[in-house]
Amino acid sequence: MVSSNSPAAHPVPAPRRFELLTLGDELLLGLTTNGHLTFIGEQLGRRGVQLTRNVTLSDEAAVIAAEFRASWARSDVIITTGGLGPTCDDRTREALAVELGQELVHDPAIEQAIAARFAAIGRPMTPNNLKQAIRFARCDVLPNAHGTAPGLWVEQDGKVLIMLPGPPNELQPMFTEQVIPRLAQRGLLLGREAYVQIRTAGIGESALETKLHPLLAPFGDALNIAWCAHPGSVDCRLSSPDGRLDLEQLEKLAGQCAALLGEDFVCHGHNSLARVCADLLRGREKKIAVAEAATGGLLASALTEVCGACKFFAGGVVCCSNDAKIQLLGVPECLLKQHGAVSAEAAVALATGAAETFGSEYGLAITGTTGAAGSTAPWGGSTENPVGTMYLALHAPRGVWSKRISLPGSRRTTHQRAVNIALDWLRRELVRAPVGVRTPAQAGG
Amino acid sequence: MVSSNSPAAHPVPAPRRFELLTLGDELLLGLTTNGHLTFIGEQLGRRGVQLTRNVTLSDEAAVIAAEFRASWARSDVIITTGGLGPTCDDRTREALAVELGQELVHDPAIEQAIAARFAAIGRPMTPNNLKQAIRFARCDVLPNAHGTAPGLWVEQDGKVLIMLPGPPNELQPMFTEQVIPRLAQRGLLLGREAYVQIRTAGIGESALETKLHPLLAPFGDALNIAWCAHPGSVDCRLSSPDGRLDLEQLEKLAGQCAALLGEDFVCHGHNSLARVCADLLRGREKKIAVAEAATGGLLASALTEVCGACKFFAGGVVCCSNDAKIQLLGVPECLLKQHGAVSAEAAVALATGAAETFGSEYGLAITGTTGAAGSTAPWGGSTENPVGTMYLALHAPRGVWSKRISLPGSRRTTHQRAVNIALDWLRRELVRAPVGVRTPAQAGG
Repeated sequence: MVSSNSPAAHPVPAPRRFELLTLGDELLLGLTTNGHLTFIGEQLGRRGVQLTRNVTLSDEAAVIAAEFRASWARSDVIITTGGLGPTCDDRTREALAVELGQELVHDPAIEQAIAARFAAIGRPMTPNNLKQAIRFARCDVLPNAHGTAPGLWVEQDGKVLIMLPGPPNELQPMFTEQVIPRLAQRGLLLGREAYVQIRTAGIGESALETKLHPLLAPFGDALNIAWCAHPGSVDCRLSSPDGRLDLEQLEKLAGQCAALLGEDFVCHGHNSLARVCADLLRGREKKIAVAEAATGGLLASALTEVCGACKFFAGGVVCCSNDAKIQLLGVPECLLKQHGAVSAEAAVALATGAAETFGSEYGLAITGTTGAAGSTAPWGGSTENPVGTMYLALHAPRGVWSKRISLPGSRRTTHQRAVNIALDWLRRELVRAPVGVRTPAQAGG
Repeated sequence: MVSSNSPAAHPVPAPRRFELLTLGDELLLGLTTNGHLTFIGEQLGRRGVQLTRNVTLSDEAAVIAAEFRASWARSDVIITTGGLGPTCDDRTREALAVELGQELVHDPAIEQAIAARFAAIGRPMTPNNLKQAIRFARCDVLPNAHGTAPGLWVEQDGKVLIMLPGPPNELQPMFTEQVIPRLAQRGLLLGREAYVQIRTAGIGESALETKLHPLLAPFGDALNIAWCAHPGSVDCRLSSPDGRLDLEQLEKLAGQCAALLGEDFVCHGHNSLARVCADLLRGREKKIAVAEAATGGLLASALTEVCGACKFFAGGVVCCSNDAKIQLLGVPECLLKQHGAVSAEAAVALATGAAETFGSEYGLAITGTTGAAGSTAPWGGSTENPVGTMYLALHAPRGVWSKRISLPGSRRTTHQRAVNIALDWLRRELVRAPVGVRTPAQAGG
């Protein structure tokens, strides 16, 4: 869902070919999702480089060597992930050493670092860990602050090979803290963000394009525009392919777009809707509580994922039964009997109930019937409320409102979209609430 | 994390080479995770085929054509995903038609199906949708029950090309309902599960291997054993590479392994821990409620993901503040003051509070300090309870217990592991509770 030939680019010194080799049977067998492609692809994209190709292969030395040979011939940078750990077949390193025409050597400094790490976590070091102290004779070692296998950086024939460990919590900091700066230093990617991003919500890609056209069109080919759609939001990325527009001009233009979009503008950059809501709540010293009768904890979970959630997230209730709604959140039983649990009235009572129960200024509620993953719908559909119908409600100092949404699709997708729509609604209400205005409740307390 | 050369295999007619071509800039830019690899890899693995290779490429016709040519030369089956939608560049179909030496034709039956789908959802059909009615002259059409672009099935030169639409909710049912049976019919994969799987929890891979060795070793090379580790569980897959052991013998052996493993045995097959707990609860007509002071809704969300969650999941509370713990779950204020919110005592009070509040027989609680994604820990660490320390508690008809766990790693990983450990604990307690025994509470009510 990217509508541009190149994702974005300030002038990168020269177009480079980056290939990613992800190694592991667990990827091909579907035991693990290929998160390295997602992470590395995004990180490179931010610096003006689109990954040309990703190949996932089994951990077999001969297969890897053949792929590497073809890739090395046509690429400027090759990144490999996995195949460096203590239980991995060390023929991979041997095979690549042959391809590179390099010797393998034992590095006492790596061994020392591994031993120090085992000492720090208080576990004995098994001998197979010493495999990880083997490196190419001519390469740089990228220290691993979160594990034992270091990364390896090889520069040869005007190309770069970067070998990274498989565990994401080891690979990711190594990539952002060591690999990106090294690549930037060599002019292989930009030393800063490649584009200025405008994140929007509540407006479709084509409507967004139409709306921004009068602002963007006058720049002609001096401006590169890329559109990236996510579930519930669309990004617009502005860059200058030949440097005719500098960063200041791009940022000014992005500011004009934001002003034109009004409340459909979410943020500049890459923050999630939950993170944007969190920042708005913290800035206003307000809290949110949630009640989920359909999304089962997904909304609470999205808010908790933001660091320091306690500061703005008062808590949540996941309630399936009417009893829980009545007892925990004070929803009147007669209301549930008259209107049903999937109704605008119930949603409003849940949102207000959540805010009152947790003592927060804002309350969000989601109730509804959702599509089943298999055969049976958990909260069943009806002619009035077919499967996929949900009611959201927002309780705020200014009032309380509900809205009905109808989302087709699988259960997980429906839940995710409902959570994003709810967060976007909260965001819009928060934007309207000026900073520093105390609610009557706060003034009284 | 697969420890075997081949993942599993009853005798498949002949070893076949399957390659997967995933198309889309959004994958290379990290906007979307490559879920097709995970899904298709797993589905093929279950039928005795390990995907040989996955290549992710940009939506450019020339690039796709070149990759397809090389892949077609060496493979038996090629599966492509994406590049079939109405907004996609239709040069992809043209380029592949050239490679295959086929003509492209307009198919009135596909057009009719697309028009019918638009009529059903009550939206006007834009002309660009007609692109999707273009197909190769010699191919089968795989109807798309959940979208407009049908799949295409080409058999040529003794090989198969399968082109699937990109949206997962369209691709997945098409794959299981149409592609798998067609492949099985042509002897390209097994018509049934390729292995008998034993899912375990609470035991590491090497300990599991050691424990099962006496049962499995006597079969020598008549038995293929593969080990697959997931976060919090390890699978053992048994198959017969040359058919010397039939399905009945394998299932008998798996049953013996299960008996030997006792409570570390979770299930045969692929059910999640949440699903196994759900089935045990439903079988005993019991319900669970949860209180989360660290995992922020992730445990509730895991339970809600199971179909028909209302039948066994009474509800949950996500509580950050002490006030919420005291008011919603009846945790004594003095207990929190004396022992702190991150303590065995608080966990026990939360688990019992959840069960009592929601009127369920079982209650699970998670409280703790977790590693921060960025710089600040949300619930902070201390010398007594360093970051990563959590207390779990389980309330059951037989009693209430707590345990302290210490999980290093990133915040998201820590949360996920804590949820799995909690669910496994619940599972063990449920296994001990015989079916059909009513609790005192039920007998009294």
